[in-house]
Amino acid sequence: MTKLLTEDAAGVYVIAVTPFLPDGAVDYDSCDRMVDFYLDAGATGLTVLGMMGEAPKLTVEESRDVVSRILKRVDGRVPVVVGVSAPGFAQISVLTKMVMDLGAAGVMVAPPGSLRTDDSIVTYYTQITDLIGNTPFVLQDFPLITNVQMSPKVIARIVNSLPGCVCLKHEDWPGLEKITTLRKEGVLDRRISILCGNGGLFLPEEMARGADGAMTGFAYPEMMVSVVQHFKAGDTTRAHDLFDAYLPLARFEQQPGIGLAIRKYTMAKRGIIAHDALRKPAAALTANSRAEVDRLIARQENRLKELN
Amino acid sequence: MTKLLTEDAAGVYVIAVTPFLPDGAVDYDSCDRMVDFYLDAGATGLTVLGMMGEAPKLTVEESRDVVSRILKRVDGRVPVVVGVSAPGFAQISVLTKMVMDLGAAGVMVAPPGSLRTDDSIVTYYTQITDLIGNTPFVLQDFPLITNVQMSPKVIARIVNSLPGCVCLKHEDWPGLEKITTLRKEGVLDRRISILCGNGGLFLPEEMARGADGAMTGFAYPEMMVSVVQHFKAGDTTRAHDLFDAYLPLARFEQQPGIGLAIRKYTMAKRGIIAHDALRKPAAALTANSRAEVDRLIARQENRLKELN
Amino acid sequence: MTKLLTEDAAGVYVIAVTPFLPDGAVDYDSCDRMVDFYLDAGATGLTVLGMMGEAPKLTVEESRDVVSRILKRVDGRVPVVVGVSAPGFAQISVLTKMVMDLGAAGVMVAPPGSLRTDDSIVTYYTQITDLIGNTPFVLQDFPLITNVQMSPKVIARIVNSLPGCVCLKHEDWPGLEKITTLRKEGVLDRRISILCGNGGLFLPEEMARGADGAMTGFAYPEMMVSVVQHFKAGDTTRAHDLFDAYLPLARFEQQPGIGLAIRKYTMAKRGIIAHDALRKPAAALTANSRAEVDRLIARQENRLKELN
Amino acid sequence: MTKLLTEDAAGVYVIAVTPFLPDGAVDYDSCDRMVDFYLDAGATGLTVLGMMGEAPKLTVEESRDVVSRILKRVDGRVPVVVGVSAPGFAQISVLTKMVMDLGAAGVMVAPPGSLRTDDSIVTYYTQITDLIGNTPFVLQDFPLITNVQMSPKVIARIVNSLPGCVCLKHEDWPGLEKITTLRKEGVLDRRISILCGNGGLFLPEEMARGADGAMTGFAYPEMMVSVVQHFKAGDTTRAHDLFDAYLPLARFEQQPGIGLAIRKYTMAKRGIIAHDALRKPAAALTANSRAEVDRLIARQENRLKELN
Repeated sequence: MTKLLTEDAAGVYVIAVTPFLPDGAVDYDSCDRMVDFYLDAGATGLTVLGMMGEAPKLTVEESRDVVSRILKRVDGRVPVVVGVSAPGFAQISVLTKMVMDLGAAGVMVAPPGSLRTDDSIVTYYTQITDLIGNTPFVLQDFPLITNVQMSPKVIARIVNSLPGCVCLKHEDWPGLEKITTLRKEGVLDRRISILCGNGGLFLPEEMARGADGAMTGFAYPEMMVSVVQHFKAGDTTRAHDLFDAYLPLARFEQQPGIGLAIRKYTMAKRGIIAHDALRKPAAALTANSRAEVDRLIARQENRLKELN
Repeated sequence: MTKLLTEDAAGVYVIAVTPFLPDGAVDYDSCDRMVDFYLDAGATGLTVLGMMGEAPKLTVEESRDVVSRILKRVDGRVPVVVGVSAPGFAQISVLTKMVMDLGAAGVMVAPPGSLRTDDSIVTYYTQITDLIGNTPFVLQDFPLITNVQMSPKVIARIVNSLPGCVCLKHEDWPGLEKITTLRKEGVLDRRISILCGNGGLFLPEEMARGADGAMTGFAYPEMMVSVVQHFKAGDTTRAHDLFDAYLPLARFEQQPGIGLAIRKYTMAKRGIIAHDALRKPAAALTANSRAEVDRLIARQENRLKELN
Repeated sequence: MTKLLTEDAAGVYVIAVTPFLPDGAVDYDSCDRMVDFYLDAGATGLTVLGMMGEAPKLTVEESRDVVSRILKRVDGRVPVVVGVSAPGFAQISVLTKMVMDLGAAGVMVAPPGSLRTDDSIVTYYTQITDLIGNTPFVLQDFPLITNVQMSPKVIARIVNSLPGCVCLKHEDWPGLEKITTLRKEGVLDRRISILCGNGGLFLPEEMARGADGAMTGFAYPEMMVSVVQHFKAGDTTRAHDLFDAYLPLARFEQQPGIGLAIRKYTMAKRGIIAHDALRKPAAALTANSRAEVDRLIARQENRLKELN
Repeated sequence: MTKLLTEDAAGVYVIAVTPFLPDGAVDYDSCDRMVDFYLDAGATGLTVLGMMGEAPKLTVEESRDVVSRILKRVDGRVPVVVGVSAPGFAQISVLTKMVMDLGAAGVMVAPPGSLRTDDSIVTYYTQITDLIGNTPFVLQDFPLITNVQMSPKVIARIVNSLPGCVCLKHEDWPGLEKITTLRKEGVLDRRISILCGNGGLFLPEEMARGADGAMTGFAYPEMMVSVVQHFKAGDTTRAHDLFDAYLPLARFEQQPGIGLAIRKYTMAKRGIIAHDALRKPAAALTANSRAEVDRLIARQENRLKELN
């Protein structure tokens, strides 16, 4: 039986990409390889159909098949969260039922961009809970993309009134103070999991502020695994050293517009997926960009050798 | 056999609402009644699954069933256009194939909000054409909502290079000069249909500038039918008189946020649909608002009597 | 001595345009003529340097000279409110001191577009109050332009904690329920003035909901004066009749982008200002648009004759 | 006599902060110290009143005094560019005349956020040129903040038709391909200066693509100076090594919302300015954040020692 997502979620939940064949069809074989790679790298969970999973480019049938394939390969080894954000409740409801029946551990819901006042945000998640019942959900807080700002007060109202909210995907920018505030005595009625995003670009500081790990993507998830583990072991210096070694590439991968193309190129180069194809509409990576990534990877490998 | 949408489209293509039962299920019986009412009122076409059709709140199956039911009831009497805008090409492609197979006359495509430069807009519609082939499509130009601005130059590039673009749903605001420019000799290689939106709020001026009619919604589509017909018959004074009689209500119905609730309330009151229910998330109409609509309708009836 | 703006503000505060000469210089003579016209038309107050006053196109010196000229001509007959919204507190502070020293009755402050959470809005106005002290201020609530949404709860927090807030310029859309909520027993600790915007396009309904009048612009301010007076006298039918007569033009003047050009053209045609010039950057009115306005004015005059 | 900005601009034009005293007054003594520091660090130019210079928070008089003080201290040693972006042409015109009379080398102009179509952007800069005549100007291309996207084609139209445009402040994200395109034979009629922004976060790659240097801020401008110099000398490995050493802090300083507070804290810590005060409204830096910066600086110093 599937273990559901709980407030104890910690470590690194990798945001999975969706692998495609050069003709645009979903590459299911690469799904398997990718799952194995992520778990071997130390992922404690997976999140599929996130923004970086090209979810809106999939048909409903494809979404189901991708989730199904990944769940089968994971085979209960780690919890799998599925992004179900959609413009309407009917879609969210259908998608949630579908993925939970398939064996997902929980769903992730981002607020629609039209929400502005505190009350409207709380009302939205209350309505979501009416819809999905006891399904555990991840509250996605990513104002840079959603254009919705949730103060710690609003997050507290959601957490304190809706037991289904077990995890905050923290991706505010800047958001370090938000973690500190949410971890203060008396703000939340119960401790929930805080997993951070932004490609891990602030992971050392986020861990120091009280995060439980990361829920984001990067072509080298082992960096995030190491940073989290060394932080938990108390070796912050080593955590920072490793983080710094990967930072030049992590920074490069965070460029809006071509970030996912860079990630997929790197993953294909590493043999994690067969092709670096993105579905249209999507920007292609030029030869210049590929050469830049190659150089950054070579430098990263040198630096890692120095650190060992 | 279905007649496809052509550059000759004229008159009033009513944007159909999607009727719901009080429990949120689609009200298919009301679909039939609504179709009959629209056609009796003089609609020369219908557009379903538009922004005001609550399309994003439907599941894919529901979208198919609504389109199917409406097409069956229309039974070839007028062309039916279906909105297929979606975040990804795979969804647009599947939806287009589905509705064209069911007998739609064409599809309507709005630009995604991320498009900014002239070239990116033209590229988008070129890719759409790669996707949907010969399917005739309506170019939806609604910057107030899409946040994408298409200059007449950009529209001309699309029309002149993509034969599938047979109609412009004109909803720029202000946009009267745009109609005038597009109707100038030499701007477009071929004359396409221009049907206007904005709830008909500028219909007399749009007709005078060269529009072929309206593609929009209003609880009294007969107003739009009359305005278009009197304009075509050269009786602009009568067109304006009738327009002015309906304007207080038309203005009231154009309030963002509750416009659709007002429209559905009025349609239910007129017996066109059984219930004024909107799907969640949606604002409910208060007793005060209902009373305001009632008063506006009573005044409108009085004024129409005076005009006859 | 200047009378300051109070919670009793009622009637019509016309948003004054800034008249220019064809070469772009401020037309001070027209300022005088405009003031006389507004007061003769029944304005109970004026608001200058609002968004429709082309305030951001004026230098600080010009702003001072325009305010000074208008205050001199008004000569204490009605209160004059001055818009002082600016990106920084230093500018707001300097501008407020300047106009209050010149004899303004109060200032109007819109929230900066970056405010998102309830607390950030309340904090902003608290800081404004720290800055401007006892100066009475108008809270401008215009989400369509500012992109900031203030719930009744947020407005109540501002009103209840900041005595300087004496008036709400209500321009939410839809916003009728907001007026009703704010007028409910127990929401506000004290009754403040609610004056409505949106070019008067919803004035009858706003009055019925509890507004005290309008603070907005329209080339025929006498319409707004009549609607408010007849409402207060209990003759709502006459208020609606007059409103409806002006509505076709009022609607036309509310087109974003060219609304102010239409208003100035009409005002120049009526002899209220000498020229219809706008400062660059601004869209010019075409001959077609001018003819449309002329036709609407002629029809409006006919309709008004019928009503007398 | 002042040397005007030309197409040869290269190296590092530091975006100067505006130093304040704890009470919010401008700290003119720190202006002097800051200028000396920047020039000692190898800056080849300065840019004042940029977005990171808190320009909108200054009154016109303060803007003049800050520019005047900085120009006096610079005393012709390097060119000084002044940001003059403002909502209206009158303000831009007055500000440009003022700073050029004081001895500025040129001005920087960002596009207003309302520009959407290619033509509207070109028209805007054409009107700017009508306004400022021969004054050399920097075209600021920063879509993340301005929300205006300029394709290489649009930039080429501006450069090729307006001789005053001598420099592109390149801050698109991702924008590496844009540099490559603009440097291709035949795109621009003349070679202009391309200086890059984004806090130097992509400087090595930007230099490799054909940039002439940076025009941005960072509390350690010597990093940018070194990267540019080593790139020009052909030692890209050394350029990358140094860049990587500063990257953890540079990344931290690029957090929207508190980036400037971090930069000022660091500059005050280094003794470059007397206080880390920002003008209201502004977020304050918490003790936690200060400790994080301290740790990053300590690690940076260690790493730099290793590299020597």
